[in-house]
Amino acid sequence: MIKLDGIHVSTEIKKQIATEVLALKNNCKKIPHLAAVLVGDDGASETYVNAKVKDCAEVGFQSTLIRLPSTISENELITEINKLNNNDAIDGFIVQLPIPKHINEQIIIKTIAPNKDVDGFHPQSVGKMALNLHTFIPATPLGVLKLIEHYKIETAGKHCVVIGRSHIVGSPMSILMGRNAYPGNCTVTLTHSKTKNLKEICLTADIIIAALGKPEFLTADYVKQGAVVIDVGITRVKSDLTKSGYKLLGDVKYDEVSAKCSYITPVPGGVGPMTRAALLLNTLFAVKK
Amino acid sequence: MIKLDGIHVSTEIKKQIATEVLALKNNCKKIPHLAAVLVGDDGASETYVNAKVKDCAEVGFQSTLIRLPSTISENELITEINKLNNNDAIDGFIVQLPIPKHINEQIIIKTIAPNKDVDGFHPQSVGKMALNLHTFIPATPLGVLKLIEHYKIETAGKHCVVIGRSHIVGSPMSILMGRNAYPGNCTVTLTHSKTKNLKEICLTADIIIAALGKPEFLTADYVKQGAVVIDVGITRVKSDLTKSGYKLLGDVKYDEVSAKCSYITPVPGGVGPMTRAALLLNTLFAVKK
Repeated sequence: MIKLDGIHVSTEIKKQIATEVLALKNNCKKIPHLAAVLVGDDGASETYVNAKVKDCAEVGFQSTLIRLPSTISENELITEINKLNNNDAIDGFIVQLPIPKHINEQIIIKTIAPNKDVDGFHPQSVGKMALNLHTFIPATPLGVLKLIEHYKIETAGKHCVVIGRSHIVGSPMSILMGRNAYPGNCTVTLTHSKTKNLKEICLTADIIIAALGKPEFLTADYVKQGAVVIDVGITRVKSDLTKSGYKLLGDVKYDEVSAKCSYITPVPGGVGPMTRAALLLNTLFAVKK
Repeated sequence: MIKLDGIHVSTEIKKQIATEVLALKNNCKKIPHLAAVLVGDDGASETYVNAKVKDCAEVGFQSTLIRLPSTISENELITEINKLNNNDAIDGFIVQLPIPKHINEQIIIKTIAPNKDVDGFHPQSVGKMALNLHTFIPATPLGVLKLIEHYKIETAGKHCVVIGRSHIVGSPMSILMGRNAYPGNCTVTLTHSKTKNLKEICLTADIIIAALGKPEFLTADYVKQGAVVIDVGITRVKSDLTKSGYKLLGDVKYDEVSAKCSYITPVPGGVGPMTRAALLLNTLFAVKK
């Protein structure tokens, strides 16, 4: 069993990005500049956004954090987004989700200029991805692709089962793994809450991508000997065994599943750091386009 | 076995559309107006476009056929498209594919204004479809959905196997059947030329959508007793038995497969007429939006 080491691979990717940034600097070219819009003061969102700012610093990107009050109106937020759309200094930006409920998320996402949509959530980015055109790919699926690529895992003709059909992970993941590309060319089965015989389906999978958000859902009896298992889930659960009083669990019961796998991602240290690196790749792509 | 009668259902749909058009007329509102751009003189394209014009007349839509020479340059074609984008009299339009090889198809598709993209091929339409937002859906997949809907075929939790991953049929079909909607909520497996054990996979399918373009490929040994089989393929093959000297064959070996099915589409008279009706539905949608 080979552990898919997201910390190692993301570090490698960040080193490559840092080298490219240095080359840009040395050639007096524009340094990539990512902006993040944080609406309100949700603790988790704060943590994510701060991590993104830190990642930018690590590779030499410029970054700007724009804090807006949770009471902001939809129109005011649209105005802020249009400022970023029209600001040539900003190459790409994200609006950290979720946003307050009085604001329509889809309207906000559609307001982001497609050429700055580094989250890859704009309908045009999603459509281009489905059409196998060069575009921004949502960070988590892109991180998974990069991990598969780094370990040169064979995908063509393999049966890939994706569990969960969220718009940010499962659904794009299923599209990407079925495209005529590497990684890709899998026979892909997309499963979700309405799926009836999930265990039976998973047992036929060469590659399982678990993105349903249920801690330790995927047990060994779902997994064929020699399968590749990618665990996208990450849930914080209470624990008496850690100082902090909690621990992070993936969607996969790691100890028992890993014994059957050819490759598996740990949680933490698997898909999580790859997601962070993928946002940097998208920002670099925004500059290069 | 119930034959999914695309001629009957499409006639019903056209009647409904005609009624809506009449109501628009009676209320002195704008009559839907579809334009079709035909580049060059490909025989098959000519037939398709003429059928679309005829369909418009049948439901009371206005239509305009724009013929352009095969020698037209990419820029000239873009200019023609922009005229249609800016022409308020035109609600929606299609550029009949294929277009001559010296013109980049993707550039042409992207030039069409998304709000007039009745073919549903623009990246923004594809993305919205994947995000389960209200939008234009490519005509063939939309026609299949309408057929399933008309016969009230249960889809939630069913295993739907799509054969073929073209951007105009298989790929959108797989996305649509997996969405949280009706028809939809299927566990969907997308198969294609790289798929290894297609027969085995098809034998687990409750619904098979064949869109690979190989006449009579799907034989009875691929089909589980009681399955629903939708045949999207249509290939013209030589025949000594018909006056015209040719006949139309689907991707499904109808006689032997139909004996095992709960529902099946014939070819011709199944998905074909539904595709034509779906373009009219998209045109009506362009007006209503």
